[in-house]
Amino acid sequence: MNFKSIFTTVALAATTLVSNAQTDSVMMRHIFDEALVNGKCYENLHYLCKNIGQRLSGSANAQKAVDWSKKLMQDYGFDRVYLQEVMVPHWVRGAKEQGYIIDGKTKTPVALCALGMSVATPANGVTANVIEVHSLKQLDTLGEAGIKGKIVFFNRPFDERFIEQGTAYGTAGDQRNAGPGAASKYGAVAVIVRSLTSALDNYPHTGATNYGKNKPIPAAAISTIAANQLSELLKKNKSVQFYLKDNCEMLPDVLSYNVVGELTGSVNPNQIITVGGHLDSWDLAEGAHDDGTGVMQSAEVLRIFKALDYRPKHTLRAVFFMNEENGDRGGLKYAELAAKNKEEHIAAIETDEGGFTPRGFSFEKASPAFLKNINAQWKSLFETYEAGRLVEGGSGTDIGPLRETVPSVMLIGFRPDSQRYFNIHHTPNDVFENVNKRELELGAGTIASLVYLIDQHGLNF
Amino acid sequence: MNFKSIFTTVALAATTLVSNAQTDSVMMRHIFDEALVNGKCYENLHYLCKNIGQRLSGSANAQKAVDWSKKLMQDYGFDRVYLQEVMVPHWVRGAKEQGYIIDGKTKTPVALCALGMSVATPANGVTANVIEVHSLKQLDTLGEAGIKGKIVFFNRPFDERFIEQGTAYGTAGDQRNAGPGAASKYGAVAVIVRSLTSALDNYPHTGATNYGKNKPIPAAAISTIAANQLSELLKKNKSVQFYLKDNCEMLPDVLSYNVVGELTGSVNPNQIITVGGHLDSWDLAEGAHDDGTGVMQSAEVLRIFKALDYRPKHTLRAVFFMNEENGDRGGLKYAELAAKNKEEHIAAIETDEGGFTPRGFSFEKASPAFLKNINAQWKSLFETYEAGRLVEGGSGTDIGPLRETVPSVMLIGFRPDSQRYFNIHHTPNDVFENVNKRELELGAGTIASLVYLIDQHGLNF
Repeated sequence: MNFKSIFTTVALAATTLVSNAQTDSVMMRHIFDEALVNGKCYENLHYLCKNIGQRLSGSANAQKAVDWSKKLMQDYGFDRVYLQEVMVPHWVRGAKEQGYIIDGKTKTPVALCALGMSVATPANGVTANVIEVHSLKQLDTLGEAGIKGKIVFFNRPFDERFIEQGTAYGTAGDQRNAGPGAASKYGAVAVIVRSLTSALDNYPHTGATNYGKNKPIPAAAISTIAANQLSELLKKNKSVQFYLKDNCEMLPDVLSYNVVGELTGSVNPNQIITVGGHLDSWDLAEGAHDDGTGVMQSAEVLRIFKALDYRPKHTLRAVFFMNEENGDRGGLKYAELAAKNKEEHIAAIETDEGGFTPRGFSFEKASPAFLKNINAQWKSLFETYEAGRLVEGGSGTDIGPLRETVPSVMLIGFRPDSQRYFNIHHTPNDVFENVNKRELELGAGTIASLVYLIDQHGLNF
Repeated sequence: MNFKSIFTTVALAATTLVSNAQTDSVMMRHIFDEALVNGKCYENLHYLCKNIGQRLSGSANAQKAVDWSKKLMQDYGFDRVYLQEVMVPHWVRGAKEQGYIIDGKTKTPVALCALGMSVATPANGVTANVIEVHSLKQLDTLGEAGIKGKIVFFNRPFDERFIEQGTAYGTAGDQRNAGPGAASKYGAVAVIVRSLTSALDNYPHTGATNYGKNKPIPAAAISTIAANQLSELLKKNKSVQFYLKDNCEMLPDVLSYNVVGELTGSVNPNQIITVGGHLDSWDLAEGAHDDGTGVMQSAEVLRIFKALDYRPKHTLRAVFFMNEENGDRGGLKYAELAAKNKEEHIAAIETDEGGFTPRGFSFEKASPAFLKNINAQWKSLFETYEAGRLVEGGSGTDIGPLRETVPSVMLIGFRPDSQRYFNIHHTPNDVFENVNKRELELGAGTIASLVYLIDQHGLNF
C-alpha cells in the first residue's frame, strides 16, 4: 500500500473521529517499514566508505564524493538537485607522524597523529621537556616560566559521570580546540593532547585545533594508553622528554560544494525544512559514523517520502554540507545563501552524532512551554520507536550559522545513542564495519518521522 | 561522600520539603557515579571471558565459573554467599560439524553448527534432498509425502519491521525450538535452520532445540549467507542435496550449582528482591553478552550498595543461575527452593538481553493501572539516565519458574538496546571485545536504581 491509499483510507475514516495522532502513527509506521525493509542508506554508506573513502575538504576524494552524491540524488529523482559553491581550506597531513617518549636512554614510540590544521615541526622534529596540565586555566598559573620551551601535554580525561558522551566530549574538548593556541601564547614549542575518548586503547583521535590569533605550533593527539603511560613516567621523572615530528601543510583554498536535493513543497514551496549532515571526513579512515551515516540518512529521508508517494506541503531539503571538520565553510555558505535568497526556514535538523540507535532529538533554545507541548503531542509517537527523548539542547555545526541569518528557524539535533561514538570518532577505526544496518535505518526512520510531523503540523508549540 | 552522609544530608533537608523523588534522584546519581567511575563489572567480565571462557552446563569450565563466582561474591563481603545444588544436562558438541550443499558435482561447504541438544548423524553423515519451508504449519501441508527421507530447511528470516529485535527473535524462534521435532514427526532425516539473526553474515547461531516427544533427528543452524545461497540454488534445481555430519552426544546429568549472594535486609530480611542472569553459556565462544554481562551486572548491583554503605530494608540477592541455555534447571531449582523455604519474594529482575545501553524494564503481566502509576512516579527518574522505558512485557527464562511457585512476585526484565544482540547471540562472535564498558556499567546503574526504588517504596502501584 502506498501513501496515497493510506491517506485516502485515513481521510475517509477521519469523518468518524480518527484523530491526527492516529493518522500520524499510521504514517510513521509506513515510514519505518520503508526504512527497515527497503532501506538504501546502508548500501549507499558502503559505497561512500569503500569506493570513495576518506574525503577531507579540498582533497580529490572530497570532489569524488560531491560528484557521486549529486548523481545519487538525481538518480532518486528528487525535484531539484544542485551544488552550492564554497571555498574550503585545504590542509594536508603529509607523511605519517612520529612521536616517542624519551626517558633517559629509553625511547618509547607512541600512537599519535597530528591535529587537523596543525603546522609542521621542523624537519628534524621537536624534542623538549614535557609539562602535564589538566586545564587551560592551569597554563595561566604556570605562565611563561613554567611553559616556555616545553611541550605542553593536556591530559584531562573524559568525566565518566556524564550520561551522554557528547557532554564529556564537550567539556574535555577545549584542550584540543583551544589548547595549542593557549600554550603557544606562553612559548610552548608543541602540544600533545590526550585523545578525546572514554576508551582506553591505542587509537589516536585527530580533530581540528584553532590557534586563534596565536602563533601556530605543532600539535598532536596521543592515544589514551600512551597518555596514561606518559603521565606515569612524568610522576617518577620530571625530566622525561617527548619527540614529535609531523609534516602537515596548509595549501591554498579549494573550490568545493554543498550538495543539495529537494522535494518541492506542494502548498508552501517557499518554506523549507532542512535535514543534513556533512560530506567531508577526516583523513584517517572512511568517515563512516562521522558523518557518512548522517548524509546517507539525510538522502534516505527524501527517498522514503518518494517511495511512499508522500507529497510534502513544504519544501524538504537534504543537504550534504562540506567542510564541517575543519572550517564549517559549507555551513556558513548555506546560511549566507539562505539570507541572500530570502528563504523562509521552518526547521533544520542535523544528524552528525553517528549512525547509532535513535534516542530522540534536541531542540536548540527551546522554551519550557515548547518542550512541554511537543512532548505532550509527539513523545508517545516516537516512544513506539524507542526514540521519545525530546529535550532542549544543541543542534549541529553545519546548521548552526542559520541562527544568525534566519533567526526564526528551529535548529534541531538528531540524538542517537552516544556511548560508542567517541570510541571511533576521528580515528582509523571509523569504518563501515562499525556501523549497524538496523541502527542506521532506525535513525533514518526517526528523522523522516520528525520531518513528516513538522511538514504536517509545523512547530508552533 | 558515602551513602550515610548523603542520607543524613537529605534527611535534614527533608524537613524543608524535600520530596521522596528528590531523595531518590540524589541516591540514583550516587549509584550511577559509583557504576561509571568505580565500576568493576567490566574487569570481572574480562576475567570470566578470558580466564574461564565458554561454560556450557556440565562442563569443567562451568564448574570453574561457579567456584570463581562464589569467591568473587565472598571477596566482596556480601552477607551470605552460597550454592544451590542442581542436576544439569550434559550435552557435548563433539568434533566440529561439517556440511555442504551438493549441486550436481559441485560441493559447497557452508558455515554451520549443530543445535544444542541435537543428536549425532550416523558416522558417515546424512545426505538427502532438501525441502525448504518457512513455517511449522507448512510441514502439516506437505505431510509425509513431501518430507519423508528429506532434510527440512527452515528459512523464514527475521521480520525487520519489529523495532525490538527480541520480538523478531521470538517470532522466528519456533523454527529452531520446535522445528526439528515437528519435521521428525513426518519422517525428515535431519533439519537445517537459518540462523536467528537480522545480520547477513557467515556466523552460524547455535541454540537449544526441543524435540518434545518426537524422535530426535540431527539438527543444525546454517549462516544467513549460506541460507540465502541454498535457497537460491533450490529455486533453480529442486534436486539439490545437503550433506550434514555432526558428532553430538548427551552424557549423564551432572551436579552443578546456582551461585547466590545476599545483602541481608535490615527491616524485612524475609522479603527478597532478586537480580540475576545466567552463568552458563554456549560452547562456541565466551558467553560475553549471553550472559556474562548479566551475571556481572547482578553482582555489581550488590557491590554498588556496599560501596555506598547503603543498608537495604529487604534482602537483596544476586543469583547466577545455571543452565539457562539448555534446560533451565537452575531457574526451576531456584523457584522450587523458594516455595519449599516459604520465601517471600517482592520482585525478581533478570538481565539476559546483553550488556548494551539500558532502555528500561518490562514488567510481566503488569496491569494498565500499574504501568500508569509506575510511569507517573518513576519514569522521569530513569529518563535522566535515558532508561525511562517502563512497559509491560516478558521477564526472563531463569526467573520465569517463580511465577508458578511464588505467584505474588513481580517478574521484571531488564531491557537494554536490542539492535546488536542477535548479531552475536549464540555465535563464535560473542566475545568480550564486543562489550562496551560504559554500556555495561550504565546497565548496572539502571538495575541498581530499580532495586533501590523497590527496596525503598515497594511495587504497590
